[in-house]
Amino acid sequence: MARRRRRRRRRRPRPRAGTDRVAADPRFHPAGSALTLGQAATLAGGTLQGGDPALPVTGVGPLQAAGPGEVSFLENRRYLRLLAETRAAAVVIAPELAARMPEGLPAIVTAQPYLGFGRIARALHPVPAPRPGIHPTAVIDPAARVAEGVEIGPYAVVAAGAEIGAGCLIGPHAVIGAGVVLGEGCRIGAHASLSHCIAGRFVVLHPGARVGQEGFGFAVTPEGRFETMPQLGRVLLEDAVEIGANACVDRGSQTDTVLGAGTRLDNLVQIGHNVTAGQACVFVAQVGIAGSTRIGNGVQMGGQSGISGHVEIGDRAQIAAQSGVMADVGPGEIVGGSPAWPMRETLRAFAALRRLAAKPPAKAG
Amino acid sequence: MARRRRRRRRRRPRPRAGTDRVAADPRFHPAGSALTLGQAATLAGGTLQGGDPALPVTGVGPLQAAGPGEVSFLENRRYLRLLAETRAAAVVIAPELAARMPEGLPAIVTAQPYLGFGRIARALHPVPAPRPGIHPTAVIDPAARVAEGVEIGPYAVVAAGAEIGAGCLIGPHAVIGAGVVLGEGCRIGAHASLSHCIAGRFVVLHPGARVGQEGFGFAVTPEGRFETMPQLGRVLLEDAVEIGANACVDRGSQTDTVLGAGTRLDNLVQIGHNVTAGQACVFVAQVGIAGSTRIGNGVQMGGQSGISGHVEIGDRAQIAAQSGVMADVGPGEIVGGSPAWPMRETLRAFAALRRLAAKPPAKAG
Amino acid sequence: MARRRRRRRRRRPRPRAGTDRVAADPRFHPAGSALTLGQAATLAGGTLQGGDPALPVTGVGPLQAAGPGEVSFLENRRYLRLLAETRAAAVVIAPELAARMPEGLPAIVTAQPYLGFGRIARALHPVPAPRPGIHPTAVIDPAARVAEGVEIGPYAVVAAGAEIGAGCLIGPHAVIGAGVVLGEGCRIGAHASLSHCIAGRFVVLHPGARVGQEGFGFAVTPEGRFETMPQLGRVLLEDAVEIGANACVDRGSQTDTVLGAGTRLDNLVQIGHNVTAGQACVFVAQVGIAGSTRIGNGVQMGGQSGISGHVEIGDRAQIAAQSGVMADVGPGEIVGGSPAWPMRETLRAFAALRRLAAKPPAKAG
Repeated sequence: MARRRRRRRRRRPRPRAGTDRVAADPRFHPAGSALTLGQAATLAGGTLQGGDPALPVTGVGPLQAAGPGEVSFLENRRYLRLLAETRAAAVVIAPELAARMPEGLPAIVTAQPYLGFGRIARALHPVPAPRPGIHPTAVIDPAARVAEGVEIGPYAVVAAGAEIGAGCLIGPHAVIGAGVVLGEGCRIGAHASLSHCIAGRFVVLHPGARVGQEGFGFAVTPEGRFETMPQLGRVLLEDAVEIGANACVDRGSQTDTVLGAGTRLDNLVQIGHNVTAGQACVFVAQVGIAGSTRIGNGVQMGGQSGISGHVEIGDRAQIAAQSGVMADVGPGEIVGGSPAWPMRETLRAFAALRRLAAKPPAKAG
Repeated sequence: MARRRRRRRRRRPRPRAGTDRVAADPRFHPAGSALTLGQAATLAGGTLQGGDPALPVTGVGPLQAAGPGEVSFLENRRYLRLLAETRAAAVVIAPELAARMPEGLPAIVTAQPYLGFGRIARALHPVPAPRPGIHPTAVIDPAARVAEGVEIGPYAVVAAGAEIGAGCLIGPHAVIGAGVVLGEGCRIGAHASLSHCIAGRFVVLHPGARVGQEGFGFAVTPEGRFETMPQLGRVLLEDAVEIGANACVDRGSQTDTVLGAGTRLDNLVQIGHNVTAGQACVFVAQVGIAGSTRIGNGVQMGGQSGISGHVEIGDRAQIAAQSGVMADVGPGEIVGGSPAWPMRETLRAFAALRRLAAKPPAKAG
Repeated sequence: MARRRRRRRRRRPRPRAGTDRVAADPRFHPAGSALTLGQAATLAGGTLQGGDPALPVTGVGPLQAAGPGEVSFLENRRYLRLLAETRAAAVVIAPELAARMPEGLPAIVTAQPYLGFGRIARALHPVPAPRPGIHPTAVIDPAARVAEGVEIGPYAVVAAGAEIGAGCLIGPHAVIGAGVVLGEGCRIGAHASLSHCIAGRFVVLHPGARVGQEGFGFAVTPEGRFETMPQLGRVLLEDAVEIGANACVDRGSQTDTVLGAGTRLDNLVQIGHNVTAGQACVFVAQVGIAGSTRIGNGVQMGGQSGISGHVEIGDRAQIAAQSGVMADVGPGEIVGGSPAWPMRETLRAFAALRRLAAKPPAKAG
């Protein structure tokens, strides 16, 4: 019996030439100001163990590729073996793993190594600030309002009644539609388009994102023809919402489509009309949420999963990749499969199906 | 036994602050001319029961948010309870539900409440007519032909030999490729691109739609290299076809990719080369149809479903969300699952799998 | 028993009016120079059997629509019956089928009919060469380097430090970001955008493709807020990589996202940060690959399939459409289903499930 379902040995990833170089190619990621190791530890919210606090830190990199002057991190035990061979100047690491640090290798010890490492990386490579100014080719309607410190790139179009908040960055070819409001510090990527939208502060649209267009609503005449239902709502994007490349968020038909503060959409996600999502939700690439579904706070959806319309998803629910949710999911529930069931049930179903597949079929009767 | 499969109570959607406002923000949806209640009833093709036919109607809204002067509708029994509390000026409602109208609340009675409501909404908020004129920044090839009454927005590009019919609206940054023909009244959204395409009248492309590009066809040399197969077909879009934001329709390789009159594609749909679809088909978001599949009239595909190539789908077939169709589907059939089976069979399979998952695994033998 | 699972008769595709015409509409596909039948046979790497080598060949077409002067091909036995009725001037065909050629119909006999036919088609309809020159509306940073023979279309934007190799074709509205390097002969479609990218020669981006944007990486603070992790990698596209319309390839976070030579992505594909893929891989439409997964050479993924992150896929593995791969797949393995299992197992599972669905449910105990 055991032979048929031999567990696949998980092979260790083999490095590929050319991808183990330290990541930050100065061609694309010019280094900002250097830090000292002591400053790095402070930024990371950690304690420096060993090492010279005055040591210059010039970059970051993964354990297998970082070199002198570069800081790395370890959060997943799976990569412990890389610690022994690393040439990093220091490693951001959790307390429970700090004892595994090789002799003489400085550690920045913090309960959140990934977060701390990110803050060091960010200090070394800050988000480029907007360079205030409007490219001469940008078309800005006289009835649009553009605040101070805004950067507007070549061929961007800002329509009548739009309001762009202080310090926004509007990329090349972006289209900001009539009446659209962007709070301060928003970043709109190349080729993105917004209409019928009110956005808060620090909202990010990645290239090609589409926000505010007409949702998929129509009535059917007795003769079988489709008549578009006017889509009279808007899209409301709360502070720090991020929308991935080529993702789409349709405006509401009768109410608004709302994404709560901090919610992030990965690339190619689809949000149907009238969907509301709470704060700090995470929708991984190619997720689709059908119209009028209501999603709570902190909901996580794995890649390519989907939710049908008019369904309610409770706070902190987790929806596995490729799932198909067709019914309400309660707060904190974990579901998977298509149709989606509680994950324990889904896993038992897969196991049962695999055992069933291993049996020879019964003789036809 | 019953405990394990407890049916999830369908919780009523709880209103979210800020989303129950009347939808039509005048910032984005300026009101057109007002109607009287009598006119609204006529537009809706319904009979006014109660109420003053001369009452001004200034907007529409959902039952839970409409206010004085605003018309609502009720089509789904699920929302009957909202009728009692609505402050709408009148409700468009089907005959069989009209008896449930609260005392004193006027009803517009019609067999198609949704359709009728849509017509009232449309009269109050007409589709903005094109404002004839070519933006000075639009690049129009001298060998292109642009009819009367066409609006062409900033940075649109119209290539040699293209023909734009009367009353078309070409959005900012749209690219109309060489030789492309658009019938009258087409609306091409911001950043959309068309090439190798002949479109009928009233075709709509939403922002970022891609029509006519090279399909995914290549031969493999004996050495294992890929050589692109010239894609020598076109895309034919019949009257009133609508293509969603960031959706993609590839041109044919040897024949044409054809979408029949009235067919609608939602956002992020993929249509492979040589696919033909009949009239009034509905492909919900993120559907994918592989090359050379032939689809009849009135076929409906749920979100994220897919059809493999060289398959035939009969008229009025229905393909459930997330299905994977790998074989022909006959007219009027309803299929679901991946692989897709007749829906009754698929539902029995899911039920059987769930029961199987509930049994403890047999002892290993 | 047999009645329940009646195999669907595979109905022959019925021709649709208007789609059987010879594909190459001169409006979109102007004919290049004519060939002789003899030259066509040579190009196809085949042997001419019958027919006059001096016969002019002016086009190509499918068996059911090709006419005098047009060459067709037959590779799939399923279409043998079309051979009898074809009016093509000659048919490219494999040796084992050559005996089925109707009397008097010339054959070009080659072991690779599809490849040979493609070469004839390509000779008749060559890829349009770039017309060297920079459109006056293109915005080219003074610090960008543009080689000879490059065509840059209207409203393209080429940023500082970008390097465009000889003979590239940059389409309307394309955005080539700071420091991006394109080798010779690349073709960048309308509205495509590249940043943080080094591309080899003959790389093709179809319209709306997005390469190099920030991947989906963030840390979570103890208060539950998301902080973006700087994405300090790049995208490396080796020679002859092709990226479909509206497909997205994110740059790496700590290392690079790499697509090996000749690899092709269909439309709407998503490649997450740090993914590496080998040479000559094929990812069909709407595939999604999560971050840090490593893919070998010659891997094929069917439409809408997905791979979770940090997984390793061996050379020449095949992943069926709509599969969900969650674990390593060895070289040459064929997997399918979600979760993906070895295909034989998956097919047995589907069959077992279908049999199970056919049984009446056991009485509740």
